[in-house]
Amino acid sequence: MNKITEMLLKILTGFKEEFVGAYNIRENGRCAARQSSPNIRIAVKTDEPGLDIHIDSRARGETVYIPACVTQGGVDDLVYNDFYVDAGADVTIVAGCGVHTDGAEDAAHNGIHRFFLENGSRIIYREKHVGTGNGSGLKRIDPVTFAVLGPGSALEMDTVQLGGVDRTVRTTSAQLAAAARLTIRERIQTDGRDTARTDFTVSMDGDGSAVNLISRSVARGSSRQTYRSKLIGNCRCSGHSECDAILMDRGRVDAFPELIAGCRDASLIHEAAIGRIAGEQIVKLRTLGLSEGEAERRIIEGFLGGAAPM
Amino acid sequence: MNKITEMLLKILTGFKEEFVGAYNIRENGRCAARQSSPNIRIAVKTDEPGLDIHIDSRARGETVYIPACVTQGGVDDLVYNDFYVDAGADVTIVAGCGVHTDGAEDAAHNGIHRFFLENGSRIIYREKHVGTGNGSGLKRIDPVTFAVLGPGSALEMDTVQLGGVDRTVRTTSAQLAAAARLTIRERIQTDGRDTARTDFTVSMDGDGSAVNLISRSVARGSSRQTYRSKLIGNCRCSGHSECDAILMDRGRVDAFPELIAGCRDASLIHEAAIGRIAGEQIVKLRTLGLSEGEAERRIIEGFLGGAAPM
Repeated sequence: MNKITEMLLKILTGFKEEFVGAYNIRENGRCAARQSSPNIRIAVKTDEPGLDIHIDSRARGETVYIPACVTQGGVDDLVYNDFYVDAGADVTIVAGCGVHTDGAEDAAHNGIHRFFLENGSRIIYREKHVGTGNGSGLKRIDPVTFAVLGPGSALEMDTVQLGGVDRTVRTTSAQLAAAARLTIRERIQTDGRDTARTDFTVSMDGDGSAVNLISRSVARGSSRQTYRSKLIGNCRCSGHSECDAILMDRGRVDAFPELIAGCRDASLIHEAAIGRIAGEQIVKLRTLGLSEGEAERRIIEGFLGGAAPM
Repeated sequence: MNKITEMLLKILTGFKEEFVGAYNIRENGRCAARQSSPNIRIAVKTDEPGLDIHIDSRARGETVYIPACVTQGGVDDLVYNDFYVDAGADVTIVAGCGVHTDGAEDAAHNGIHRFFLENGSRIIYREKHVGTGNGSGLKRIDPVTFAVLGPGSALEMDTVQLGGVDRTVRTTSAQLAAAARLTIRERIQTDGRDTARTDFTVSMDGDGSAVNLISRSVARGSSRQTYRSKLIGNCRCSGHSECDAILMDRGRVDAFPELIAGCRDASLIHEAAIGRIAGEQIVKLRTLGLSEGEAERRIIEGFLGGAAPM
């Protein structure tokens, strides 16, 4: 793999020299390295670009890495990755996508991920997005995620856009069977003329299912973000969504959350708050000796829960 | 005025034998009684059905009554009422609409209200809606409200749909100049096959403007409600909207709140919660000796802030 891929992998996954266990490293639309493990089998799709990742019931506590990097302009990568998670499996998936261009052509990645979780399985999914390079070409990442959660299964998604991504449209949809649990923590940072759109649709179809969706974002420069969520409760279920945004400079964030309660036993809650950093927070940190810039940085770090600010 | 109008006026405005001060009573599309006061002039529009209501700067602490009643099927009343509120006026407007049918034909009222509040004026607007009668015809009330709030003015709307209204589409929009304040408290009760749709658009265009929008609803039977709100912050302003709904029987409520922050100094918050009455609340009141039905009634009474339940 090339030097830019190595640099991006460090940012995305903490990669040093090699991955342990199952992994697939995608570089400019091709496989740079791949390895299965006894319980996690990574197979190349034959009908379209991408992978079928089979996670066996015996897989417990393992991590599988599937980062993708685009290291030059003129690449518009499209990949379909399907995860088949057998009953009782308990695995962490580390994804991540870096796009880099030093030229005038766009560098783009479109990852279409589907998750099929069988009874009682549990997946932690971690994903970072970043754009690097000084080219005038746009850095674009458009992820599409579709998850089917079987009875009693749990999917925990932790997704971060670190910065440098000029355009992103993030589409996530999920269907939950009885007692399934979906947790999503999303953190998005934009600056300059970046635009980011994120769109969630979660349908709770089985009694006792639950979703907790937390989106936090910071919009700097003249960047613009749009948040959409639709929680649909068709049964005895509980849904919570939360969208908090900090505006800086001339940043702009719009929120369109929807609650669809189609059953008396559905309990749905949404909260959204958009605004600038409260003046008193800055003042408080300045009295502790921080400069205004440092104070702002600390507050945003806390707000984003440790995701490294741009 | 007829007996049904008298009955409806009692429900809507607490009317006993006569109103004091300025009033206009509308019955089946015609004026049943009208009176101006020295500071509140009620004039009949010449180009369309309805009234121009001029509220003088000297009007302080006065109340003007403008109830409208439809007492039979086959009436589809349409009225345009415009309120011109001079700088510094401070007045309460008691509106209200009752629709009644004992037959197979629909009884409908469409009230289109426009409010123009000059600098520093203050209006409290109270409005109740009710449907009565045993006819199979639909009882429909479709209010449209448009308010322009001048600098430093305040509009406080307190609106209640008591019940018996089969169909309603409620559309409210407002534009706020600097330091203007809009407060809306809406309470909607539906039952049977009722449908209710409420739609708010508030644009904060002047620094220091603020809106506080609170909607509470109870959906019984197979009734269905839809809540939409759009808070637009174009300046240093603060917006808060809240939609809470209790589901009973097979009732259904959907919420579509939107926050549009077009300025870093806009602070926008939305909260929504939809669900059934918490079981522990019922249990607590039953331990105090109430029956389940009584406990439920008390909880809903409290939730709706004293609006008489159906």
